[in-house]
Amino acid sequence: METLRVALAGRSYPIHIGAGVLDASDLYRPHLGSGRVAVISNPVVAPLYLERVKEALRRAGAPAPVEVLVEDGEQAKSWGALERVFDALLGARLGRDSTIVALGGGVVGDLGGFAAALYQRGIAFLQVPTTLLAQVDSAVGGKTAVNHPRGKNMIGAFHQPAAVLADIGALTTLPERELRAGIAEVIKHGLALDAALVDWLEANLDALLAREAGALTHTVRRSCELKAQVVAEDERESGRRALLNLGHTFGHAIEAGAGYGTWLHGEAVAAGMVMAAELSVRAGLLAASDAARVRRLVGRAGLPVTGPAMAAERYLELMALDKKAARGRVRYILLERIGSALVRADLDERLVRDAIAAASPPAAAAAAR
Amino acid sequence: METLRVALAGRSYPIHIGAGVLDASDLYRPHLGSGRVAVISNPVVAPLYLERVKEALRRAGAPAPVEVLVEDGEQAKSWGALERVFDALLGARLGRDSTIVALGGGVVGDLGGFAAALYQRGIAFLQVPTTLLAQVDSAVGGKTAVNHPRGKNMIGAFHQPAAVLADIGALTTLPERELRAGIAEVIKHGLALDAALVDWLEANLDALLAREAGALTHTVRRSCELKAQVVAEDERESGRRALLNLGHTFGHAIEAGAGYGTWLHGEAVAAGMVMAAELSVRAGLLAASDAARVRRLVGRAGLPVTGPAMAAERYLELMALDKKAARGRVRYILLERIGSALVRADLDERLVRDAIAAASPPAAAAAAR
Repeated sequence: METLRVALAGRSYPIHIGAGVLDASDLYRPHLGSGRVAVISNPVVAPLYLERVKEALRRAGAPAPVEVLVEDGEQAKSWGALERVFDALLGARLGRDSTIVALGGGVVGDLGGFAAALYQRGIAFLQVPTTLLAQVDSAVGGKTAVNHPRGKNMIGAFHQPAAVLADIGALTTLPERELRAGIAEVIKHGLALDAALVDWLEANLDALLAREAGALTHTVRRSCELKAQVVAEDERESGRRALLNLGHTFGHAIEAGAGYGTWLHGEAVAAGMVMAAELSVRAGLLAASDAARVRRLVGRAGLPVTGPAMAAERYLELMALDKKAARGRVRYILLERIGSALVRADLDERLVRDAIAAASPPAAAAAAR
Repeated sequence: METLRVALAGRSYPIHIGAGVLDASDLYRPHLGSGRVAVISNPVVAPLYLERVKEALRRAGAPAPVEVLVEDGEQAKSWGALERVFDALLGARLGRDSTIVALGGGVVGDLGGFAAALYQRGIAFLQVPTTLLAQVDSAVGGKTAVNHPRGKNMIGAFHQPAAVLADIGALTTLPERELRAGIAEVIKHGLALDAALVDWLEANLDALLAREAGALTHTVRRSCELKAQVVAEDERESGRRALLNLGHTFGHAIEAGAGYGTWLHGEAVAAGMVMAAELSVRAGLLAASDAARVRRLVGRAGLPVTGPAMAAERYLELMALDKKAARGRVRYILLERIGSALVRADLDERLVRDAIAAASPPAAAAAAR
């Protein structure tokens, strides 16, 4: 097991990475406080890992946690699901000294963390991510939210977990499509912050797709290191943290436009990164050969290199409401080279349309131009 | 005009108190940022003050704010009302650089502040309290929430305003019943923290009920001073701030038991303080003569000195879910003397029943014992 720390003064917390950490009662115990525990999960993850987590909690002194299962998939990041979690917690009379354990992927983590942020004005929570996407990205950093029909993650809070238990062993049961979706966020970390990680991915993608333990561990550790550093510098995303949204402005438009749950978040981010790279080239920032390198790596990971058949108009409409927009202008995260991103808000709309077309299916591309 | 400050490191903010502060565009301007503005109010307050606030905002460089009116009364602190606020803000495409202005009493402030806490993971907000209760208590300190059928303020967040504009002039239009409800929280501040304020209230209650400007100003200023100090010491209510919940454990049970909106919050707190004083006597902490003094002051303010005709059983049931409960034990805020409160969790249930009976209508009292 390896342990990293997210350094946030009074709210610093550990990220434990390794095979079997979800069974380690010692890792739960320091964070359970005096109250009761609720485990939030979903019907896909619970049959695989809930009993093991309950056994660890029992040994940590928290028998009989309240169990709340929410729908599988992005649809669960809803106002209604959140309300059902509150009903369950209040129904079981959980007090302000309780702890939520979020056991699952990014959706369960975002929803469980958001419930913890709001329940009785904030209780503690532990992230036990079971997908690659959650382990390398969403479980770290305290962003929690639900979606709104008008945009993704529109209603949310910053609420840091008390600890993250990233069990590499859980990745063995992950469906292939979700493994690939997680790799999208790893590629994002490399493209935005760390050229060496991109080199490593290009060299080790096959080992990663084959789920070799060493490759998985390196991937999760390096991603968490990069993310922990950025979050420690800029918890509330007033600056540098925004770079981690590379591919997300386009990606959120894809998710909302296609209907939540149609595209996996990581798939939408993958196509979004190709668009961001194309836009970077058109903005005179990135070499065309580097955009080709992005597209090649995304494609090799089995991720989409084009968005859905959606009109450029619709992208622009959805992106105008993006949280990163300021004074009505969309702020794009672009690449100046592999491993270095920046924010630009003053882009000609024609360049954006061109970039969307360059990463759209042929028919949609023709219509977009 | 007088200005106090709530000292919270990076999130310190001013409280401006005086007649006409809601017209002062200079007091809004520093807090509006670069984005747009939404004013949240209700159909009772809006006809009286919305145009004046809009005029001040216009002069501060924010013409045409989005206007959202929520229901009058405690019923508006609901999940549904919150959702309607989000729909309006997203419908008008307000970005993360927007500001919410909460114009109204405690309900509008709690709801508007909670919406600001969650909208796009948190935007700025200004409190423009128009009731005595909001000016002396709820607009200061960053507690925001909605109610849940199972308990008051169960879903919420700590989110400090950027400024509080407490216009004493607005208190001239306040219905008599609401003025008295506000006085309950002033009495609370005195009983819990400041014997001199209790002496002052006993000497000046008639001037306060007659809404003399000097009496109103003293009341708001002194209450804000006390509250600002406590909030600066203990923003998240891990210690001393809990003393400000004097009367609230019983009071929340009264509000929930009677149905939200039947009792005004201040009325429920008033009867709750009498119960807390009676319980303090029974716990051997407070002289019976001091409990009588509490009851007399509450009664002179035209506030209820007994709760509704509700069984003690029902109080205990509702209080067991109180946010201040820890490890399933209700934590009571008691008085050791006038001006000094403390927290006790180890009370014999019979004493609690007795205290409820001592401040219940005759029939309910007989049933409770």
